Amino acid sequence: MKPAILIQTDFSTTWSAVAEMKGVMKIVDPELEIVDLTHDIKKFDPWEASLSLAATEPYWPMGTIIVSVVDPGVGTERKACAAKLNDGTIVITPDNGTLTHLLHSPGVREVREIDESVNRYRGGDHSEVFHGRDLFGYTAAKLASGLITFEEVGPQYPIVEIVECEEYYSRPVFTEGFAEGFILTGVRHYGSISLNITSEAFATCGFKLGEMVRVLIRHEGKGIFAQSVRYCKAFGDVKEGEPLLYAGSSGWLCLDVNKGSFMEQYGVETGKDWIVTIRREDSES
Amino acid sequence: MKPAILIQTDFSTTWSAVAEMKGVMKIVDPELEIVDLTHDIKKFDPWEASLSLAATEPYWPMGTIIVSVVDPGVGTERKACAAKLNDGTIVITPDNGTLTHLLHSPGVREVREIDESVNRYRGGDHSEVFHGRDLFGYTAAKLASGLITFEEVGPQYPIVEIVECEEYYSRPVFTEGFAEGFILTGVRHYGSISLNITSEAFATCGFKLGEMVRVLIRHEGKGIFAQSVRYCKAFGDVKEGEPLLYAGSSGWLCLDVNKGSFMEQYGVETGKDWIVTIRREDSES
Amino acid sequence: MKPAILIQTDFSTTWSAVAEMKGVMKIVDPELEIVDLTHDIKKFDPWEASLSLAATEPYWPMGTIIVSVVDPGVGTERKACAAKLNDGTIVITPDNGTLTHLLHSPGVREVREIDESVNRYRGGDHSEVFHGRDLFGYTAAKLASGLITFEEVGPQYPIVEIVECEEYYSRPVFTEGFAEGFILTGVRHYGSISLNITSEAFATCGFKLGEMVRVLIRHEGKGIFAQSVRYCKAFGDVKEGEPLLYAGSSGWLCLDVNKGSFMEQYGVETGKDWIVTIRREDSES
Repeated sequence: MKPAILIQTDFSTTWSAVAEMKGVMKIVDPELEIVDLTHDIKKFDPWEASLSLAATEPYWPMGTIIVSVVDPGVGTERKACAAKLNDGTIVITPDNGTLTHLLHSPGVREVREIDESVNRYRGGDHSEVFHGRDLFGYTAAKLASGLITFEEVGPQYPIVEIVECEEYYSRPVFTEGFAEGFILTGVRHYGSISLNITSEAFATCGFKLGEMVRVLIRHEGKGIFAQSVRYCKAFGDVKEGEPLLYAGSSGWLCLDVNKGSFMEQYGVETGKDWIVTIRREDSES
Repeated sequence: MKPAILIQTDFSTTWSAVAEMKGVMKIVDPELEIVDLTHDIKKFDPWEASLSLAATEPYWPMGTIIVSVVDPGVGTERKACAAKLNDGTIVITPDNGTLTHLLHSPGVREVREIDESVNRYRGGDHSEVFHGRDLFGYTAAKLASGLITFEEVGPQYPIVEIVECEEYYSRPVFTEGFAEGFILTGVRHYGSISLNITSEAFATCGFKLGEMVRVLIRHEGKGIFAQSVRYCKAFGDVKEGEPLLYAGSSGWLCLDVNKGSFMEQYGVETGKDWIVTIRREDSES
Repeated sequence: MKPAILIQTDFSTTWSAVAEMKGVMKIVDPELEIVDLTHDIKKFDPWEASLSLAATEPYWPMGTIIVSVVDPGVGTERKACAAKLNDGTIVITPDNGTLTHLLHSPGVREVREIDESVNRYRGGDHSEVFHGRDLFGYTAAKLASGLITFEEVGPQYPIVEIVECEEYYSRPVFTEGFAEGFILTGVRHYGSISLNITSEAFATCGFKLGEMVRVLIRHEGKGIFAQSVRYCKAFGDVKEGEPLLYAGSSGWLCLDVNKGSFMEQYGVETGKDWIVTIRREDSES
């Protein structure tokens, strides 16, 4: 059986772009099964693309062909690549940081640059080039249908050359009664945010479930949020509309509002320029 | 041929949750066909989940496997169940009111609690449990692929124990020239709302097409909307931007704005705490 | 192999309508493959429906069955039709302007009115008629599954009777240092708009890449936007937050904001009543 193709983009599904990608795949091979991961990755943000792949990849069959098109550098020198992971899954993406997390787990076995001279779709309107459709999607379809082998994608290049997001290496700071990190990501639909601080590491700072902590969020030097927040187990431990700090199921420390949206209520976005400081309430700031 | 799996959730498709569910289903059996009902059920609202299933289920082949994950009580004592309907379709859902309408039509033949000891996915990251993916979706995939029979889902329990939404039993009030009910549901995309008042019952109060009626909407004791509205047949019977009351194609009385959104224009939401009173314009209030 | 069915509507996927359409198709033939084009066509706008089909159709296999349900005239005299294009693809749609662009390229070979007496689904609740599901979707499924031939859709009618959007014939005006057209369409997700002015025609007015031009946008006689804008090649040619005029990859002249949304920032919508005038900066207005 042919592997399924799983697609993620930042295009949204509100216009024809994703359907054009799928159509070209169907022209290559009408039997291919194409499934949407999401098309609402934060626009132009390879870091969010990388986090999304890291969350999803472990729950798909090994050997799946994943296409990710979050491509702020389209038209620049960034490579168009296909990476074979250690578990056999193949990811086709601009090499722009989208592979950051998968590079560390499950790891990349081999990476190749897509050879445009053979793996670019040249049907449709020749004046227009849409890489998601004509390069990434087209190559994915050829691989999934068995028309080309992984070696035929294009020339191999060293795994160490794969571009990583610097956020990955921005480590949180911990001392007794103090932790500082950044806002790793958020689920806008619910309004919760995750910090790049594991609840395990947070515990080593001596914080205890149930205590009030002082949370500060700064963005570009400006204070965005400064409140005492309960570090607790469940949403029900605070009143409706109140913020809470809790250990998310993914292992990261999270902030949200009981029956509300932390992101909306406090105008908070995500990324490494959103700095979060947590200190013991009775400490001096 | 294996039955299709139809999924509805309140997760939205803006992040990886739905794709993780689909991936685990594909790990169970790559041949399964999975179709989205909607992932934009009103958050944490089993009543809306129940209405959506009632609208859709009659238009799918008998024997379809439906998964509904709208689960405000995840982590509490609510049962995770699979219900076989009288037409052979199977619904896998938290037993939290989501089955309310289907229980009455087409009716439930048999209901079983999912046995987590055998029907829970234990791949991926063990520290994290995501019931939509690891319990509801996984059990649906095993059923659809024929790996387990309905009996092997888990122990049967009495149909009378199935949880129903109390809204279902909140009946409207009718007298001559007067009707009172609540806002059953709405289609946010268009901005129209449906009342739990059938147009048939409304007619028995003596209201006539074309007449102006006094409509009051209250929420938690506060007046939200109070206007004279035309009870009419078509949007064109009122000016652009004006509200109208009409018999919806589903049989319920509806409110909307011609070329506008009633929900947005008047800040109206849905649910049993949104009380709507309609009286003859010349009556005393 | 049976052709895939590609659907576009203005229903959104936030409620059950699209899933009801798909369910009836699966009742006709569970083997059918149904793919979403988009369900976020601008509400009640056949012009946008037509543009979306024109963008997507060339990138799908010939012989695909396309269903488009953007139907402001449901319940009126508009015809429900199936059009066979010159490349063999079939489009099933209300005949209300949705075929405008496809009529010109690739052209329509034959058009038939759907015979409701045989090609209307009569399962489900008889009191309710939902044309997208019971007429357009149902007929598409019968065609795709081979249950009916194209001739059995219903009676043929002359291609010249196909309804076209008048926008198609609203031609832009060009003179030296001057161009005027309307806002053809926009991609709300990014906020960019396309004008009905090709970059090729624009060049014949003597405008040169890099120069500042005066752009005026009027809607119903009111000025909405009046600024000097750089006519340039890439977003990076203007500062963040600044508007730019550029040749879109589709051949149309486009307006956007670097790292922003032109539509949101300036409150601009799309359609033939949004008039755009571009003149050389040093000319007299």
